[in-house]
Amino acid sequence: MQMSKRISSFQCSPIRRLVPYSRDAERRGIHVIHLNIGQPDIKTPKEAINAINTYSEDVIAYGVSEGELALRESLCKYYEKYGVSVTPDNIMITTGGSEAIQFAFMTLCDPYDEVIIPEPFYTNVSTFANIAMVNLVPVTSQVDDAFVLPSIEDFEAKISKKTMAILLCSPNNPTGHVYTKTELLQLLELCKRHDIFLIVDEVYREFCYDGESFTSVLTFPEYKDRIICIDSFSKRFSMCGSRIGAIVCYNKEVLDSAMKLAQARLCPPAVEQVAATAALTAPQEYIDDVVKEYERRRNTLVSAIQEIPGCKLSRPKGAFYFIVDFPVDDAERFAIFMLRDFSYQGNTVMFAPAEDFYVTKSLGKTQARIAYVLNEDELRLAGKCLAEGLKAYRKQVMGLR
Amino acid sequence: MQMSKRISSFQCSPIRRLVPYSRDAERRGIHVIHLNIGQPDIKTPKEAINAINTYSEDVIAYGVSEGELALRESLCKYYEKYGVSVTPDNIMITTGGSEAIQFAFMTLCDPYDEVIIPEPFYTNVSTFANIAMVNLVPVTSQVDDAFVLPSIEDFEAKISKKTMAILLCSPNNPTGHVYTKTELLQLLELCKRHDIFLIVDEVYREFCYDGESFTSVLTFPEYKDRIICIDSFSKRFSMCGSRIGAIVCYNKEVLDSAMKLAQARLCPPAVEQVAATAALTAPQEYIDDVVKEYERRRNTLVSAIQEIPGCKLSRPKGAFYFIVDFPVDDAERFAIFMLRDFSYQGNTVMFAPAEDFYVTKSLGKTQARIAYVLNEDELRLAGKCLAEGLKAYRKQVMGLR
Repeated sequence: MQMSKRISSFQCSPIRRLVPYSRDAERRGIHVIHLNIGQPDIKTPKEAINAINTYSEDVIAYGVSEGELALRESLCKYYEKYGVSVTPDNIMITTGGSEAIQFAFMTLCDPYDEVIIPEPFYTNVSTFANIAMVNLVPVTSQVDDAFVLPSIEDFEAKISKKTMAILLCSPNNPTGHVYTKTELLQLLELCKRHDIFLIVDEVYREFCYDGESFTSVLTFPEYKDRIICIDSFSKRFSMCGSRIGAIVCYNKEVLDSAMKLAQARLCPPAVEQVAATAALTAPQEYIDDVVKEYERRRNTLVSAIQEIPGCKLSRPKGAFYFIVDFPVDDAERFAIFMLRDFSYQGNTVMFAPAEDFYVTKSLGKTQARIAYVLNEDELRLAGKCLAEGLKAYRKQVMGLR
Repeated sequence: MQMSKRISSFQCSPIRRLVPYSRDAERRGIHVIHLNIGQPDIKTPKEAINAINTYSEDVIAYGVSEGELALRESLCKYYEKYGVSVTPDNIMITTGGSEAIQFAFMTLCDPYDEVIIPEPFYTNVSTFANIAMVNLVPVTSQVDDAFVLPSIEDFEAKISKKTMAILLCSPNNPTGHVYTKTELLQLLELCKRHDIFLIVDEVYREFCYDGESFTSVLTFPEYKDRIICIDSFSKRFSMCGSRIGAIVCYNKEVLDSAMKLAQARLCPPAVEQVAATAALTAPQEYIDDVVKEYERRRNTLVSAIQEIPGCKLSRPKGAFYFIVDFPVDDAERFAIFMLRDFSYQGNTVMFAPAEDFYVTKSLGKTQARIAYVLNEDELRLAGKCLAEGLKAYRKQVMGLR
């Protein structure tokens, strides 16, 4: 039967579309190390689990569309740690950061409007843009350049009458770059000059390494009307399954408009909001320990892959991903080979081919996004698998020696 | 700052947009009886709450995008009660029935494609259609006719090259009509003749009264490729806040396409899925008792409103809403009057103006959607408030006596 043409042009998520191969491998008894997805093995704060275990409502009732006040109040307090001063009215709770990005696109853009985005970027943004019929206009950041912000001239060259916003992710998924205060200010100036919005996805805010300091876009009140911050509890508190995110915004008109979308879908999940509120009461040591742990994991996996001949990557400063350029013809083919045709002592590695993290065709074909969210033993084994897998792939598939 | 034009044309939900008035009234100490929203006061099954209270995962991790297998397996068993035979592969768990409708629109329709819908209909469908840029083409059902299915000729007259589907809700929100087996068959034949889909929202499946029997669209396997069933746990188990719904569909291509959307948003909420799975283990008496209770509530409120001079309504046979035609000039003005300017012994009533439950302009202006989900004492008081409020409104605002 005939269905929509547009849906056939939407991508299958490169983070998840190879899952049938990994399930097959697992059925064959192979241990698959999942570097494809940012699913931490870190425990969710016990405060969150306790709140779930003591949930005492008789009725799991609809909540308010903008999210529970208690949660929004707790978030305000949390943001103070980052020098951000907001009220609950500046916050809309969403069903994951995913919904927050979709609300931002629908609220700011008409069909065929444009949003400028440094590529590579978090690939699911493509689908959110497709749903809203927004065109993503890429500005390419380079692996050789540690994926720093491309020049402001590069951005300015892409601004058209249809440009409504620039979308950043800082610390960056997938590159690990942490945008500096100077970079943010330059962008805000640019946005002001062209009267457009700056959307910053800060869901990895905590995850900065090597003493790198994080600057929230919310700390520039002089640009407040044009700032939209995307947030999520998923990574910070290792509660990805809860699907609790937020839009933080000083612009009342933006939030009032987003409210139309929020009301139509009624409310974010109720029990998960209780868990999120409790997660915010976890002591600072919880997050400090998690960040230290990720820093160790990064060091372990980055070292292991840097030792593999021909692999190119730049040491990520934040979040928990990096882009690696493999010495292969096609990273997706290599990914399938790893799952279907290869194992090392009963183990193999799954990663996300990076081609779909780019809008520009032909870029990223030999690259992959690697998440380093697993424990160091797993990561060391993953490094070994990748080294051996690359050798095998180059020999068996590419005919090299 | 300039935002999207489309968002300014989206409606503010008539179910929720008067909330500021009701909050104001409550601040003034007035007891507001909420007939505007289908938020039952019935307890969620204790099985669901117990499952939450014994949730024992260390990490609230991402689930699979199509929803947990245990939940989909339990749903298959549940559908057997309705003579429906499906496998977990036929089911995609969604974040509420809301997301299921959005996925169906995006999957079936290109921008400017059409979906035919009997009006009045569940108003939030308008926003879901707007997001997908789908045009809703109405076929009007009539209060004088107990909102039965309009004639097949009426539907056929609306079918164009752009028609992709017909969307029903049975039992119907907001009219309370339960579509008969004959009505469904006629529509399926029509859909087959024009090679389009039939989407049926069956979230109120259990709620049929007066011995009325329910027929699921999933029991017509000879039309299986063109059937999409929308489902939700919200009403059945009084767990609206959990936001767990589903698409049930025999057509693999539809589900494969919807999977692109599902993967982009990662997964439905994890803890709520555990609660939903447990809710399905509640004994049949739970739901039987709830349905009996709603039947009593319907009788109470319908009788009370039928006694008010000038009010027109037809006795609903299912779901827990009805449309009432008030003897007023404007139901929204009357709704605001009730909240802002009126009280009866410290009480008042909130209801949803029905104009936005119609696509056709000028229809429904004097109508309201009434939900009878509260206990009988509240409903009796609501009837009294409405009777007195109407008198006051007609005198004070309309200048009648």
